[in-house]
Amino acid sequence: MKQYNIAVVGVGAVGKEILKTLKTRNFPVASIKVLARSAREIDVDGQSYMVEEISPESFKGIDIALFAGTEGEKGASVTYAPSAVKEGAVVIDNGADFRLKDDVPLVVPEVNAADVKNNKGIISNPNCSTIQMVLALHPIYKLSRIKRVIANTYQAASGAGQSASDELYNQTAEFLDGKDLTIKAFSKRIAFNVIPQIGSFGELDYTTEEWKMVYETHKILHDDNIKISATTVRVPVKTGHSESIYIETEKPLLVDEVRTALNAQSGIKVVDDINSLQYPMPYESEGTDDVFVGRIRKDPYVPEGLWLWVTADNLRKGAALNAVQIAEALINDGQF
Amino acid sequence: MKQYNIAVVGVGAVGKEILKTLKTRNFPVASIKVLARSAREIDVDGQSYMVEEISPESFKGIDIALFAGTEGEKGASVTYAPSAVKEGAVVIDNGADFRLKDDVPLVVPEVNAADVKNNKGIISNPNCSTIQMVLALHPIYKLSRIKRVIANTYQAASGAGQSASDELYNQTAEFLDGKDLTIKAFSKRIAFNVIPQIGSFGELDYTTEEWKMVYETHKILHDDNIKISATTVRVPVKTGHSESIYIETEKPLLVDEVRTALNAQSGIKVVDDINSLQYPMPYESEGTDDVFVGRIRKDPYVPEGLWLWVTADNLRKGAALNAVQIAEALINDGQF
Repeated sequence: MKQYNIAVVGVGAVGKEILKTLKTRNFPVASIKVLARSAREIDVDGQSYMVEEISPESFKGIDIALFAGTEGEKGASVTYAPSAVKEGAVVIDNGADFRLKDDVPLVVPEVNAADVKNNKGIISNPNCSTIQMVLALHPIYKLSRIKRVIANTYQAASGAGQSASDELYNQTAEFLDGKDLTIKAFSKRIAFNVIPQIGSFGELDYTTEEWKMVYETHKILHDDNIKISATTVRVPVKTGHSESIYIETEKPLLVDEVRTALNAQSGIKVVDDINSLQYPMPYESEGTDDVFVGRIRKDPYVPEGLWLWVTADNLRKGAALNAVQIAEALINDGQF
Repeated sequence: MKQYNIAVVGVGAVGKEILKTLKTRNFPVASIKVLARSAREIDVDGQSYMVEEISPESFKGIDIALFAGTEGEKGASVTYAPSAVKEGAVVIDNGADFRLKDDVPLVVPEVNAADVKNNKGIISNPNCSTIQMVLALHPIYKLSRIKRVIANTYQAASGAGQSASDELYNQTAEFLDGKDLTIKAFSKRIAFNVIPQIGSFGELDYTTEEWKMVYETHKILHDDNIKISATTVRVPVKTGHSESIYIETEKPLLVDEVRTALNAQSGIKVVDDINSLQYPMPYESEGTDDVFVGRIRKDPYVPEGLWLWVTADNLRKGAALNAVQIAEALINDGQF
């Protein structure tokens, strides 16, 4: 079996998760180069990695470069992806910078793996909140075109990076101890609060996160006509995004056929047994690979209306796992 | 000014909040009788009250009896309201048991105060999640009939009572200390988690809480044709419910006219300045009387579609304050 020279750029929450995922999935690795702003040694789950200082020359001989950009800021890919591509690597970028460019495929492998073919050196990994939504929409879309999506999110702190994840626990401890709160990673208090803003405000007073769910879903499903509108909200959960998704299909669907289609979808696990109070919850999604779907039910008044409750580990399927799956799709596509 | 003999039944989170509210609003009280299952002395914000053991004879001479029933269980009103009414009292019931009965008005005073006229001795206080939603819908409904409502809630622990409220902080401390979690008031872990179930499961796999938002809103707005569908979710917040409400009106509205109408609505405070990152948040709603509305924006694709983000103190406007306001509406109506 062929093995590949891999670069991982960034050693934040997502970068570390990529290193773990390459190992747990037995990715055919010939060598791993870990790149960041400064050289140092890091430990990830008991394995030590030597981090090298990134430079345009870092990508010589690299087959696949996995960039772990920071959500909401420009990623290292803006500076270094062109050098990596020039050296012959395919870049898989976790950041938002390239996602909507025409010549950059945006891929959730279970949905549109074939799109990897069209890459010109860069493939983008979608936003965490898009990935789990679009994977749940995909099997339903195959039953009937989807006309509308109204999405509300309950997003975990770690989606905003390691410092935000730490701030949730530290600030909560400060609160319970009656101390002054340290508010730094988030612009508002997150302990025992919810913040109805993720990203910065843009067109029509929607946030960047809310627009990502619209445009990225259009691109992945190859359908710009779906009327998607979202409200994205940060909740005091460490890891595991939840989404309440209201869907309007072209033709009315039965709950049973929706459940069957979701069950048959690779990457999805249906958890929907209300008699034993089983439904997806974020803390149970942490550390798992699947997208969990439950609370599947029809709108009482609108025959085409349908609800789903969807959770996933935002660092895994929402980021690192999906990026590694894109690399696997590239290999399966015979690009190396 | 006439003064009234008041009974308050129940000394849980809502009962105590009613005692506080009667005081802070200078309700014209001649006497207050506090009733519960067992006699004892309690302290509420530095004032002591002698609790008497409730019996059918407790209501002699009482003008207004405020019942603070427990959400999701039968309230004391089922047993004692008939005796209170027989003694000539008007019962204002915080529980769910009488809300949908034909001869029981269900009242949010800013919306349908006139309905108090039609009482036959019992007036119901709506569910907390209904009250804040319907108050926000009301001024919009006056601009255009509302065709559809798709609601997602982010509800605080104290909505499930004092023990649930305590469990949130205690369990969170246990979690941060690495101890075993005590899960008792909620059926699932609430620390750093969200639970997509409030109440018990019923028709079409919706929960009792989700149906309350449908039927109670129909009754208060006198319009059974609004297509309302909700997903209700518990979040790790102590007090302050948040709701993300998607509205479809009959005619398209401008954001500015919606904002103007909301601003003019008594009981509502618009907090919607995204340039300075101002929007309603639950921890800022705690201990306040208003219903806060922000994130007012149009659906990018559906001209009749409109989003609101609404927060309120679930123990005050969502319960105790609204109950006392119903009593005030009764007095203003000249029923005494």
